[in-house]
Amino acid sequence: MKRFVIGLFFVLEGCLCPFAQHLSLLFTRGEVEEIRAEKGTVPAFDQSVSEVLSAADAAINVPISVPVPVDGGGGAVHEQHKSNYYAMFHCGIAYQLTGEKKYAQYVADMLEAYAKLYPTLGFHPVRLSPVPGRLFWQTLNESVWLVHTAIAYDCIYSTLSTQQRTIIEKNLFTPMADFIMEGMDGNCANNKTFNKMHNHATWATAAVGMTGLVTNREEYVKKALYGSDGTGKRGGFIRQMDYLFSPDGYFTEGAYYQRYAIWPFVIFAQCIEHKMPELQIFNYRDGILLKALTTLIQLSYEGEFFHINDALQKGLSAQELVYAVDILYNHYPEDKSLLSVAKAYQHAYLPTIGGFRVARDIALGKAIPVVYRSGVFRDGRNGNEGGIAVIRSTDPKLNSALTLKASSHGLSHGHFDKLTMAYYDNGNEILADYGASRFLNIEAKNKGHYTNENRTFAKQTIAHNTLTVDETTHFNGDIQVSSRYHSDIVYSNLEGKNFQVIVAKETHAYPGVEMRRTLAYIPTPFLQFPLILDVVQATSNGEHQYDYPFWYNGQFVSVNFPYNKAKNESKTLGTKNGYQHLWVEAWGHNENQNTSRFTFFNRNRFYTLSTATTPQTELMILRLGANDPDFNLRNETAFLIREKGRKKHTFATSIETHGDYDVRMETSCNLTSSCEEVKVVTDTPAYTVIRATYKERHSVTLCLSNPDDGTENKHSVTIEGMVYTWNGRCGVFIK
Amino acid sequence: MKRFVIGLFFVLEGCLCPFAQHLSLLFTRGEVEEIRAEKGTVPAFDQSVSEVLSAADAAINVPISVPVPVDGGGGAVHEQHKSNYYAMFHCGIAYQLTGEKKYAQYVADMLEAYAKLYPTLGFHPVRLSPVPGRLFWQTLNESVWLVHTAIAYDCIYSTLSTQQRTIIEKNLFTPMADFIMEGMDGNCANNKTFNKMHNHATWATAAVGMTGLVTNREEYVKKALYGSDGTGKRGGFIRQMDYLFSPDGYFTEGAYYQRYAIWPFVIFAQCIEHKMPELQIFNYRDGILLKALTTLIQLSYEGEFFHINDALQKGLSAQELVYAVDILYNHYPEDKSLLSVAKAYQHAYLPTIGGFRVARDIALGKAIPVVYRSGVFRDGRNGNEGGIAVIRSTDPKLNSALTLKASSHGLSHGHFDKLTMAYYDNGNEILADYGASRFLNIEAKNKGHYTNENRTFAKQTIAHNTLTVDETTHFNGDIQVSSRYHSDIVYSNLEGKNFQVIVAKETHAYPGVEMRRTLAYIPTPFLQFPLILDVVQATSNGEHQYDYPFWYNGQFVSVNFPYNKAKNESKTLGTKNGYQHLWVEAWGHNENQNTSRFTFFNRNRFYTLSTATTPQTELMILRLGANDPDFNLRNETAFLIREKGRKKHTFATSIETHGDYDVRMETSCNLTSSCEEVKVVTDTPAYTVIRATYKERHSVTLCLSNPDDGTENKHSVTIEGMVYTWNGRCGVFIK
Repeated sequence: MKRFVIGLFFVLEGCLCPFAQHLSLLFTRGEVEEIRAEKGTVPAFDQSVSEVLSAADAAINVPISVPVPVDGGGGAVHEQHKSNYYAMFHCGIAYQLTGEKKYAQYVADMLEAYAKLYPTLGFHPVRLSPVPGRLFWQTLNESVWLVHTAIAYDCIYSTLSTQQRTIIEKNLFTPMADFIMEGMDGNCANNKTFNKMHNHATWATAAVGMTGLVTNREEYVKKALYGSDGTGKRGGFIRQMDYLFSPDGYFTEGAYYQRYAIWPFVIFAQCIEHKMPELQIFNYRDGILLKALTTLIQLSYEGEFFHINDALQKGLSAQELVYAVDILYNHYPEDKSLLSVAKAYQHAYLPTIGGFRVARDIALGKAIPVVYRSGVFRDGRNGNEGGIAVIRSTDPKLNSALTLKASSHGLSHGHFDKLTMAYYDNGNEILADYGASRFLNIEAKNKGHYTNENRTFAKQTIAHNTLTVDETTHFNGDIQVSSRYHSDIVYSNLEGKNFQVIVAKETHAYPGVEMRRTLAYIPTPFLQFPLILDVVQATSNGEHQYDYPFWYNGQFVSVNFPYNKAKNESKTLGTKNGYQHLWVEAWGHNENQNTSRFTFFNRNRFYTLSTATTPQTELMILRLGANDPDFNLRNETAFLIREKGRKKHTFATSIETHGDYDVRMETSCNLTSSCEEVKVVTDTPAYTVIRATYKERHSVTLCLSNPDDGTENKHSVTIEGMVYTWNGRCGVFIK
Repeated sequence: MKRFVIGLFFVLEGCLCPFAQHLSLLFTRGEVEEIRAEKGTVPAFDQSVSEVLSAADAAINVPISVPVPVDGGGGAVHEQHKSNYYAMFHCGIAYQLTGEKKYAQYVADMLEAYAKLYPTLGFHPVRLSPVPGRLFWQTLNESVWLVHTAIAYDCIYSTLSTQQRTIIEKNLFTPMADFIMEGMDGNCANNKTFNKMHNHATWATAAVGMTGLVTNREEYVKKALYGSDGTGKRGGFIRQMDYLFSPDGYFTEGAYYQRYAIWPFVIFAQCIEHKMPELQIFNYRDGILLKALTTLIQLSYEGEFFHINDALQKGLSAQELVYAVDILYNHYPEDKSLLSVAKAYQHAYLPTIGGFRVARDIALGKAIPVVYRSGVFRDGRNGNEGGIAVIRSTDPKLNSALTLKASSHGLSHGHFDKLTMAYYDNGNEILADYGASRFLNIEAKNKGHYTNENRTFAKQTIAHNTLTVDETTHFNGDIQVSSRYHSDIVYSNLEGKNFQVIVAKETHAYPGVEMRRTLAYIPTPFLQFPLILDVVQATSNGEHQYDYPFWYNGQFVSVNFPYNKAKNESKTLGTKNGYQHLWVEAWGHNENQNTSRFTFFNRNRFYTLSTATTPQTELMILRLGANDPDFNLRNETAFLIREKGRKKHTFATSIETHGDYDVRMETSCNLTSSCEEVKVVTDTPAYTVIRATYKERHSVTLCLSNPDDGTENKHSVTIEGMVYTWNGRCGVFIK
């Protein structure tokens, strides 16, 4: 890495000339010529180009509007400035692809209008962001504006007079890049952000770096690549490539923000590749950008990203992914599965050579399916800060995925939910992660920003399918503390044909309480679909209340215990840490059986949770929505298992997927669970054994060796006279 | 009609011979030969045939199981008997299409097993139905069983020995047909049903009639066609064709049950057509069966039926519609729009000549789109009992539909909701009708039957977008009373290019209260989408409380008035008539403006209700789910407008559709409503004038002439010095 940095300095100092060449950021002259020559050969790509041209035509038919900033995300003026950068971007490209001057003229006129406005702006009047912008309420949007506009400027540069260029660069690009890099009026929040290891910094460095490339300012490029101090030791794009992804290409905030983060990475990398090919930026760190994309693809279900941390409903169709797929396929044309991502989820191509080649190769039938695989996606720069485990069925027809979050906190977008599981099946999210509480771009909803309930509910532990101890959030909800630690994936066996298993551990979320979770995914000859056994072990020297919710999506069908239900009055479960948002819909105890069962259905399939309980176990059905003055929360539902006054407790649950329900034919089968009992048979420091019993005397016995050392040892336990022997941490015995 | 009956009698008495011919119910010998000859020419049809053969193969590979009945809908034994009739049906057809004896043998074996079981059965042990069956918990399912089995028997008849036929007919078909027609053990519920004008009777007459056709029992055919007394004056299939559909082909229970009702109509009609072509059954009553189908198609949105009365989520993909489309297209091959229904929504073809021709003609590219049109679908045998009005945009790209229910009660599946409106837009149900509370075929949910909440909530007036007076349901919830009356559609103008309007009236739901509703659908040059103006007029001599809810599907965005919200405690709105199921989530008054506004969004579009209010108007947000011990209700939400102590009140609401919200591109526009005021400008017995004002001084003035006579007169009113003149009942003035 060190040598590489030196090499780059050499490059920077040795080649002033190429900086002066234009059309060299997102396109080169040769690429534009190839695109123009291929017109008509790939209809899907022609369609994307014609959409860009339509957008450009629509833009130039409306008078230019460059208003004084007044509002936040979703507001009319905010949206105007946003649509302006798209308009310039589209017109710049339209000029290159058609040669029609009117498009260039439009960009020039708008840039001149901005060059008039920009110097007059102080900080934005909406004071919501700690990093306020001038044109937008937060500098982040200003960086995004500049990334697009730099490309537009590159596209029309040759049509401008020297005087025009001077005005635009002096009054707009330079002050904006300086502002993004340094801040203004003694507010150096921007400078801090610029040098952070954070996705906002990626946008900032891309914006400044691309401005440097297009305006021929080396020092901007250098600072963009190596931070304000130019050393590469504290900030800069290169260091971000080292720090923001784990060796597996996982971005610590989770897939939703990885989507957003990858955009400036690939667009700036493309510009660097064009201007400074010697850097071989796409090969940097063993091709980390491609790894980031393939990991992002793996962290999705039916095209939508897993809802870890602050996630909204986005996925492989997002425009950022169009950039990533088209730019990276152009550099890695051997990865034909990228084509199938574009084919299945993306409805447009970039109007670049990459977009053209993706469209062409899809048309040539070269796409091969993505293999969604089980895997551990390690977190942390060095891959040693836990990670996200994903179990997928070996038979892709089953279309199910089980996730376990055992990562580090995930920066400011992280949630306090160590060891959370989620289950996706049959095209739906069955056991759910709430994700974020935010109405992106809807100004009436907290100006499009995260709502207050994101903090009071969505980030709290109780919002997740994991253990809350004593009604307190992990790390007491303190991000400073949480950020110091990470969970660990202590064992995984994802290759097994007979079963897949993952074991994770968390020892810091609650001082004095050790938590472990084992998720086993087990096809059996007697159940309709693979079985999930979920074992959550809490161990402490003191007595605690352990709350374990299953947030489920579906319609309640039945439980096997008597319950009371809120009839004319409804009350909340608690007063803080997210509990204040939970209506208690029903509550009961199971005094007759040692296994409590809850069945719900989602679309045409049924799900039964069968869990080992005692007559003291409190069982509840919760509904989200209390203390939500602005109607920001969705009305989700949970099945809560509460154990009180326990030092050590093991939650053992059979998650059975069953049933076929055909509305068209009005037929149904297997709608009732086969599970008869789930029992913790043995629970010692050395071994925990769970047995789940099903109809017709079938059973699945899951044997766990608890100590973390010697995971490859041979183990054996004797239960009811029968000896169970296994190698490694987990044994599964099916009868 | 009289002559026709006589003609039919002649036919019955004149042609005993054709009854003895076999293969003549769903197929004729010639049709089977054509299907076999065309094998391989239409891949989509071959696919459907191969699915039937696969189903038949799957059936014959499992030992025959004909268990003693024990359970209700969704139960294992219930489902076994259901799958048995499908198995016989599939195997019968498979035998005809392949000539392979194994299929015929399977049907014969199973029929013999049933012939052993059936005579041993008393009434079914599950006592939930007033019309209990023997094989199934209700006789209805027994009729369905027999319809399928009669076809299977026809298909394999020629393979059976005389002795086999005797046993099967004597021990199974005859007693079952007798039971369906007469009842048993002094319980004559079946006989009553058989002669009713009701869809269960259609199944019963089809079952008995088809049994008569296949077993050569004329008296069965005669009774099926003309009722038990053979006169045609009280019961029978022919009379059902006269009584169960309005002249427009509307079935009084609503589209959901019309779907179910049409199945036995078309299948029995097909058998009659084959056996007694002289009857020209498909031409009967001016082709009422085709009208029934096309009306059913019109009463759908995006392939799903409007949720009027007891409706679940079903639509054009239902198997009943496959029967209707394939059988009727075979008789009306000139209606090429039927092909597009099959193409868009149906994933299979009947393995009959009709199915073949539909598949073939689709493959030949002959499908033309269905034109979904505005229309009034009259209710009542003579078309004079109100009806369902549907307003659709003239531009099909807008994809919206507005419905107004002003029909008669709709038999036992009717709801108490005169003048209900619903709004469908952008592919979604926006202002919703709850439909039924039922979990079809899910035994754990009240054995798959309607839940208790269907009566306590779904049928009540407050569950619907119409007026509830004094917290009491229309007709006090008394079906006897409700069935005596119907609403009236007093005016409609659905051809207007400038606007479409419908006016309906209800005077019996509440003695002493007259209710009118006007729905106007108005494209304007200044709003993004057509505007809906909704005027609900209540007139009475006494003081009342008027509750008007909008049940909406979407996420609350904002209101323009202060409100309190249930924080730690939630209470119900009332104690009976459905009110006991409603949590009051928020409540407020608008003391500062005369127009109260509520905005919500659904997917990528926004909807704003702006309604004329006073400071006394109570405004609430309601959520469904209280007093629901078994978790049967969905958690729907409503915006309620309550006026207290009013004799006369006019609710005037602007329903504005606006906004574009693109998650992929993260762009949004027009997310806030343009509506500034909605005002009842004039409200006299003669005229009511509503003015809705929008941004930039635009307005829409809706002038209504209130008296029902002279609807074609010329009217004029003077408002603020301006004279408004219009012809007919409604004038719309856009500024």
